[in-house]
Amino acid sequence: MLFQEVAEKVSAETGIRTFASQAERLLASFLHTDDFWVASGWAHVPVPVASALVRRFQEEGYLEINNQDRIVLTEKGRQAVEGLVADQWLSFRCPVCNGRTVDISSVPHWWKQFSEIARERPEPVQEYDQAYVTPETTVARVLFLDERGDLRGRRILVMGAEDDLTGLAIAMTGLPREVLILDIDERLIEFDRRWIEKLGLKHVRAEVFDLRNSFPEEWLGHFDVFITDPPETPLAFKAFIGRGIRALRGPGSVGYFGLTLQDSSLERWQTLQRYLLDEWSTVITDIIQDFNEYVPWPYHGQTRAMRLAPVSQPPSADTIWYRSAWYRIVLLESGKGTNEPFSEKVLKELYLDEVSSTT
Amino acid sequence: MLFQEVAEKVSAETGIRTFASQAERLLASFLHTDDFWVASGWAHVPVPVASALVRRFQEEGYLEINNQDRIVLTEKGRQAVEGLVADQWLSFRCPVCNGRTVDISSVPHWWKQFSEIARERPEPVQEYDQAYVTPETTVARVLFLDERGDLRGRRILVMGAEDDLTGLAIAMTGLPREVLILDIDERLIEFDRRWIEKLGLKHVRAEVFDLRNSFPEEWLGHFDVFITDPPETPLAFKAFIGRGIRALRGPGSVGYFGLTLQDSSLERWQTLQRYLLDEWSTVITDIIQDFNEYVPWPYHGQTRAMRLAPVSQPPSADTIWYRSAWYRIVLLESGKGTNEPFSEKVLKELYLDEVSSTT
Repeated sequence: MLFQEVAEKVSAETGIRTFASQAERLLASFLHTDDFWVASGWAHVPVPVASALVRRFQEEGYLEINNQDRIVLTEKGRQAVEGLVADQWLSFRCPVCNGRTVDISSVPHWWKQFSEIARERPEPVQEYDQAYVTPETTVARVLFLDERGDLRGRRILVMGAEDDLTGLAIAMTGLPREVLILDIDERLIEFDRRWIEKLGLKHVRAEVFDLRNSFPEEWLGHFDVFITDPPETPLAFKAFIGRGIRALRGPGSVGYFGLTLQDSSLERWQTLQRYLLDEWSTVITDIIQDFNEYVPWPYHGQTRAMRLAPVSQPPSADTIWYRSAWYRIVLLESGKGTNEPFSEKVLKELYLDEVSSTT
Repeated sequence: MLFQEVAEKVSAETGIRTFASQAERLLASFLHTDDFWVASGWAHVPVPVASALVRRFQEEGYLEINNQDRIVLTEKGRQAVEGLVADQWLSFRCPVCNGRTVDISSVPHWWKQFSEIARERPEPVQEYDQAYVTPETTVARVLFLDERGDLRGRRILVMGAEDDLTGLAIAMTGLPREVLILDIDERLIEFDRRWIEKLGLKHVRAEVFDLRNSFPEEWLGHFDVFITDPPETPLAFKAFIGRGIRALRGPGSVGYFGLTLQDSSLERWQTLQRYLLDEWSTVITDIIQDFNEYVPWPYHGQTRAMRLAPVSQPPSADTIWYRSAWYRIVLLESGKGTNEPFSEKVLKELYLDEVSSTT
């Protein structure tokens, strides 16, 4: 069986467990796109796996890469996947909420104001693993929190990734009891502070903070909700989420974060889910695939993902190819999490390992 | 702090861990509804907890139950929760997909035909824990499978709960390689067979089968996908899902099921999630809250939920109050699951324990 064999070879080659159904899905995606990056995102496989699969399919004559760097199925490839995906690309995904479950058009005035502000945000830098989500994503996050009872009257901690402007958007609602926004990037904190002042927002602070350091005593056990977008290497995930957990008030408090299948594998998700359940005694209440859409970042040409890819062009600047699932967790026990400074080992593997490649 | 105290008392009284945020959310829901059942569903708490919370709030003067069995906040109650929920009831939930992420209006012809067929289905009986989902839910399930690559060309096993007609709907698409529908209720299997014949559906069988018994050899390791709607006591969950896992072909195969927060608690979800990760080495890829909407079942007056409730009227026949989350899991290791017949212990706790009450 073709796909089984290809999947086994790619598993061995990349060290990342790959399944026949994933190989099949990646090949099938070229019925609808000729863009390597878009296909890898749609198939929900890590970039190193997508790269190895495409090379293998090319060798076996299922697809070709033309001189415009486009991927085209051969007749043999087409026959192998015909009928395996819907005729229309992503045809059943809800066109109104884009599969996010919440409808941002229900807050037209706020949404308009926020997207205007977002147009002025600082550009992402590789040094901090930055890549921001679309303004639609940020607004949907805030509405999602509200739906779940995690916004109004809550103490909310936003841990990094403020290039998404999630903290600012939350503060703009005026609904939480308290918002603390932390980011290592001074430009973002300056940006937030300027808007906080301009809009006269209350109960919100924005502070330059390096999350590799320990939190001061007054943040520990203080928050009802944390939000973060952690790196996806296991050690870094553990360090980030562990710190967030330690900042929560106790049982019933909540955490939110994004997790991809493009810098993580299914096996890695299992490892991270075990941390969530066993290490911190949280329970997972929501996983919404493809909730977070990232605007292609300008430094993609310098990433390991680019070096691995079977194509020579980075993703197009105007096409979303990278997405993450939106997780919500609830803490069930006291005294969990950690406030240690990050160890040398964590720092070494903060963003990159065999699965994570896009930073 | 009021809610913390109430939550602790209710935890002690019911034996089910209850959090301040849940107590608050339940009380706040009476800003928008006077219906006990609707509030308990919206607050995502088990019926025994919702019942105990309402009695406690009543004692403390936060709400009253009037002589029409309606729940009304007192001035004191209103003040305690004012501003804690959005002004409009569930205002941000996407009105097109109803928060399910997939849009059923994209398949108008099929959707219309299915909903006509569904109108004739047999009525639910308590003996089999029956309560069917809306036709919208069933169609959304099928589209969700298709979005994830779990429909076309797949071998699909539908394990019980065929009062939802999920197996029939899947077969009607004509897309899977094979569909096997099992249910203990002859009426449902007859119904499916009649339509399978009438519509000339291929590659589908419907068989009367008691899932408490072992599967025949030829079903083991045979399917790409299983779908079920298990009872939520831990032993029964383990027995049902374990059998589904055993029927899967191997790593990369997929399972789907519903899980409520109305017959389960957050703590129970954690237990069940640990089974998923540790017992069977699956990974959770999707959890969509409130995906499955159940039509109120006629025998509700005879359930433990009804005996526990602080009101004397069962849920209104035309208002959805009971929902479940839609889980998707992927199997990562071979040789998992079980094919033992259900033990006496499982059978004794199949549907009811301290948390599960609606059967």
